[in-house]
Amino acid sequence: MPKVAIVLGSSSDLEVFQDARKLLDAFDVEAPVFILSAHRSPKKTIALAGELTEKGIELVIAGAGGAAHLPGIIAAHTTVPVVGVPVAAPPLEGWDAMLSILQMPKGVPVATMAVGKAGAINAAIFAAQVLAFRYSYLEEKLARLKAKMEETVAFKLSQIISGL
Amino acid sequence: MPKVAIVLGSSSDLEVFQDARKLLDAFDVEAPVFILSAHRSPKKTIALAGELTEKGIELVIAGAGGAAHLPGIIAAHTTVPVVGVPVAAPPLEGWDAMLSILQMPKGVPVATMAVGKAGAINAAIFAAQVLAFRYSYLEEKLARLKAKMEETVAFKLSQIISGL
Amino acid sequence: MPKVAIVLGSSSDLEVFQDARKLLDAFDVEAPVFILSAHRSPKKTIALAGELTEKGIELVIAGAGGAAHLPGIIAAHTTVPVVGVPVAAPPLEGWDAMLSILQMPKGVPVATMAVGKAGAINAAIFAAQVLAFRYSYLEEKLARLKAKMEETVAFKLSQIISGL
Amino acid sequence: MPKVAIVLGSSSDLEVFQDARKLLDAFDVEAPVFILSAHRSPKKTIALAGELTEKGIELVIAGAGGAAHLPGIIAAHTTVPVVGVPVAAPPLEGWDAMLSILQMPKGVPVATMAVGKAGAINAAIFAAQVLAFRYSYLEEKLARLKAKMEETVAFKLSQIISGL
Amino acid sequence: MPKVAIVLGSSSDLEVFQDARKLLDAFDVEAPVFILSAHRSPKKTIALAGELTEKGIELVIAGAGGAAHLPGIIAAHTTVPVVGVPVAAPPLEGWDAMLSILQMPKGVPVATMAVGKAGAINAAIFAAQVLAFRYSYLEEKLARLKAKMEETVAFKLSQIISGL
Amino acid sequence: MPKVAIVLGSSSDLEVFQDARKLLDAFDVEAPVFILSAHRSPKKTIALAGELTEKGIELVIAGAGGAAHLPGIIAAHTTVPVVGVPVAAPPLEGWDAMLSILQMPKGVPVATMAVGKAGAINAAIFAAQVLAFRYSYLEEKLARLKAKMEETVAFKLSQIISGL
Amino acid sequence: MPKVAIVLGSSSDLEVFQDARKLLDAFDVEAPVFILSAHRSPKKTIALAGELTEKGIELVIAGAGGAAHLPGIIAAHTTVPVVGVPVAAPPLEGWDAMLSILQMPKGVPVATMAVGKAGAINAAIFAAQVLAFRYSYLEEKLARLKAKMEETVAFKLSQIISGL
Amino acid sequence: MPKVAIVLGSSSDLEVFQDARKLLDAFDVEAPVFILSAHRSPKKTIALAGELTEKGIELVIAGAGGAAHLPGIIAAHTTVPVVGVPVAAPPLEGWDAMLSILQMPKGVPVATMAVGKAGAINAAIFAAQVLAFRYSYLEEKLARLKAKMEETVAFKLSQIISGL
Repeated sequence: MPKVAIVLGSSSDLEVFQDARKLLDAFDVEAPVFILSAHRSPKKTIALAGELTEKGIELVIAGAGGAAHLPGIIAAHTTVPVVGVPVAAPPLEGWDAMLSILQMPKGVPVATMAVGKAGAINAAIFAAQVLAFRYSYLEEKLARLKAKMEETVAFKLSQIISGL
Repeated sequence: MPKVAIVLGSSSDLEVFQDARKLLDAFDVEAPVFILSAHRSPKKTIALAGELTEKGIELVIAGAGGAAHLPGIIAAHTTVPVVGVPVAAPPLEGWDAMLSILQMPKGVPVATMAVGKAGAINAAIFAAQVLAFRYSYLEEKLARLKAKMEETVAFKLSQIISGL
Repeated sequence: MPKVAIVLGSSSDLEVFQDARKLLDAFDVEAPVFILSAHRSPKKTIALAGELTEKGIELVIAGAGGAAHLPGIIAAHTTVPVVGVPVAAPPLEGWDAMLSILQMPKGVPVATMAVGKAGAINAAIFAAQVLAFRYSYLEEKLARLKAKMEETVAFKLSQIISGL
Repeated sequence: MPKVAIVLGSSSDLEVFQDARKLLDAFDVEAPVFILSAHRSPKKTIALAGELTEKGIELVIAGAGGAAHLPGIIAAHTTVPVVGVPVAAPPLEGWDAMLSILQMPKGVPVATMAVGKAGAINAAIFAAQVLAFRYSYLEEKLARLKAKMEETVAFKLSQIISGL
Repeated sequence: MPKVAIVLGSSSDLEVFQDARKLLDAFDVEAPVFILSAHRSPKKTIALAGELTEKGIELVIAGAGGAAHLPGIIAAHTTVPVVGVPVAAPPLEGWDAMLSILQMPKGVPVATMAVGKAGAINAAIFAAQVLAFRYSYLEEKLARLKAKMEETVAFKLSQIISGL
Repeated sequence: MPKVAIVLGSSSDLEVFQDARKLLDAFDVEAPVFILSAHRSPKKTIALAGELTEKGIELVIAGAGGAAHLPGIIAAHTTVPVVGVPVAAPPLEGWDAMLSILQMPKGVPVATMAVGKAGAINAAIFAAQVLAFRYSYLEEKLARLKAKMEETVAFKLSQIISGL
Repeated sequence: MPKVAIVLGSSSDLEVFQDARKLLDAFDVEAPVFILSAHRSPKKTIALAGELTEKGIELVIAGAGGAAHLPGIIAAHTTVPVVGVPVAAPPLEGWDAMLSILQMPKGVPVATMAVGKAGAINAAIFAAQVLAFRYSYLEEKLARLKAKMEETVAFKLSQIISGL
Repeated sequence: MPKVAIVLGSSSDLEVFQDARKLLDAFDVEAPVFILSAHRSPKKTIALAGELTEKGIELVIAGAGGAAHLPGIIAAHTTVPVVGVPVAAPPLEGWDAMLSILQMPKGVPVATMAVGKAGAINAAIFAAQVLAFRYSYLEEKLARLKAKMEETVAFKLSQIISGL
């Protein structure tokens, strides 16, 4: 069973990742959640980054707001791929998180998704797309998702999940 | 041998992807380049998106400037993962491309990298990270890249390539 | 009777186009609505773009939010003129949609209107202005609209419609 | 012969519209140029807006930088359709012109194109698209332009013009 | 008695100028309000601009949102000084109005104030400062306002008005 | 003879105000220049603000870049009207100076002009417009400037000066 | 006992600094609050800046919104270190205050913190960090704060205070 | 002798900190330079953060561009105060670095300075201001700097250094 870590800078971000988690579940991807701060709990964050392989985690989805260093710092300490999701918060409404996650320097990529819920959902789908390199059963699920969306136009989670 | 398509909106973007291509070469990843426009040659673009699997292409790196629909349109027509690289151009200097690529709606992810050369290079590294799910030899190369960077701090392409 | 397609990325955008539709009705312009996504239902979108002339559609008004590729993708597949209306949504509040629609590359124009309801209404008026090239009765209606606005300063839809 | 006015806020904007003018010429559209300022020569600007029909002008392409009121002011004084092209200039690089042209209020549309040369060229193509409602020979030219672009991907003006 | 025109793009802007009007009243400055649109009632707008001197109006305070051409267009048609106040509205929250009013070209100044109520109030105070060139009684009132503010720190309108 | 102070944050800003000074000269307005920093020479700045009336200075034109507190600080210490001109400098290109000058709080206005040379020139013209309340000869000069601009469209300083 | 002044542009900013004040209290740092405006009460502001040493104040935390000159003006009149906190307010939501505080010119630093409450809290912590140069008891408190955060990840004020 | 570490993300940033280093030298502050990347050499970066006290470093000045996590990551691993300097680079010209450094979350402050050289110089001066808590000789030097600036207005490094 594929395994993805969802690492969030704050427990208040859980709501943003609710649908993403349901989707990973529907993809039969195990997705434990870790609440960690790149700044307030840097040791735990780095420790997790160092133990990913050991824990069987194959990809990290990291969401954070503000300076949003979490995805980049995890990426700095591992070669496991990291997908970053900027979380919007007043007053700068995600512009800060978006640039902090996206503008990573040469050598240490973070695959950045849209700000907020859409980005969280797409992180889950993208994770499935790349995990399909190893778990070929995902290809069919992704094809069904695509077919379902073409058919219904809107992204209705319950419908999509029942279609997978 | 892993195979990645580099799809660019304009032949003038080739220079931005020069180092990325060298890096993919050093990763022993085949990386044919396609110059295609989501707007001016939409049929060819969609045709390519439809033939990716048939051509043995496992991941797409798509770079574009301005309205930069290229990565999103390819992603709309395939379940092959798409990594997007915004290309900066005057006068809006990549803000347009960045938002057009990043802000994809629920259901169709594009993994967005930093604007310009750093993003192109990181797209290549990220591609190697996820292709390692299928091609385990890449893991060692990525570990060597990481070690080399920790050792030299700067990202010196020739040094890094010789180190892989 | 002139015929314009209103193509929206989501049924939630219908509210933004409510007044625009009333106005097209008052201009005696037929305006069927299509809910289509450039990303989730790309085949249907391209199919519509290819059948516009066949369906007797003379102009497209396309509204979308976020990456907002819908107007540009329709424009890529037809020579029927496309008018684009960026729709605002949190957190980036339309800056993303505005740039994605406006910054089209050389060769494939999208005539962009203001973000949101004002843009939707103006798309309808602009459609009438250019359809007047073929349907001269529209000239008089447009002249009456202009006179009505000079007289009342504000844009009061019911008054304007009764004045056409 | 169709007739379009190109109205520019400054003679220095002529260079931005050079290719657009060649294209209009290739479309057999007459396109006289007027250098007028909404602020410095408001009377001449309004006079032109009032005489458009009389002069046989069927559509206005207006380009301006900075506060860029020119397209909006012409649109306020006529029902002839107005296409606006923001022109970039330091230090704000077109963000000011873009918003000033795009964000027109309900009732008075300006069809806005991309900032700079791409916008100017697309204004010319869009003009041809809507003038085709009255001059059907333009349809074929537009179809050839589209075919030429699909074939060559890039927008090479001389090639395109020779293809029309 | 000094006379200032308050020209607003919409009656909904009246609320933004409520305190400004009270302040002008406390300065013994006559301040008739005109609701006029640069785009929907351009003739009335230009007519007013042409009759300012005749009406005894010595300065114009013009407030508008969106493309916000109103202050600039009045300034184009008169040598009476124009003070502009950007009004914020969703979704762009005044960034559009701010740039459209501020970035006037060489030759036609609009003295721009802060976005919203603070700007409206400051427009009234600035009007008093320059009208003091002709009406010297204003100097003392302005000095009392300044003293009152130094004393109370906050800007409490009723206190300030009673202090004038 | 009317008297205006030009207060600049740096001697490097002199070039931005060169044409503004020529114009004030042509308006027969005395315009001594003061190089003062709100931050590095705050005492001198406040001293000047306190001596304006004594020195016969009737209006201040203040230009500054970056945090650009100069106009606001002078305005805080005097009831003499202050016109502010944001000066652009890399890397933020005037966005910082524009907001710092424009967004003054209730009670202390700074009349803000466009960023850079256009703003400096317009500050000079606006100064003439309000000084005309006291020096009626300026009305005629302003009327000639307006006529000259309508006639020639462009703002050609030498022509305009010879026309005053 | 260390002493820090909290200087706020408005009494409405008190709420933003509530937690910061509790934290300073927990650090045993005396923190008198001054409500002062750089623009409306400039003399009082400068007087305070001149009396800081005399009053035993060792560091200033200054919070302001809009043009937000308060921190910079205090810094201009003292060598006591100044920490600035931008306060967000509609419509520009702190972008104005952020740039006005951050972009200080060479020679007069203001140490800028994040916009809003996070910035206020961090100003208090940073004050403790630098005051520890003189008051070594603070080092232990800061170490306990750091340990507490690593342990609980979130920043829960009551927990942190009880831990100091 | 006080000791400050200058930590830079790239050796190309050295030029930005040249004057800052001269100034620290003139303040008799020892200022070793470390070239370290939060992303490419995270272990070395964290190691340095952990050894600051041991090395006798009392304050960190950290400069970085792009995602610019360097200052925040050092701050996460120490209670030694960290001053951050955003470095501008094309295409986003420092907006990314500015937000990434400034918008630190509750609990982990980074004192942010202006983008680029001015920020680097001010970081040096601010360092001296807070180090004066421990090294009182700095107070006099800072007083002389302030006097020198009031006297000459401009910030001329050689003059200032000779005046310290």
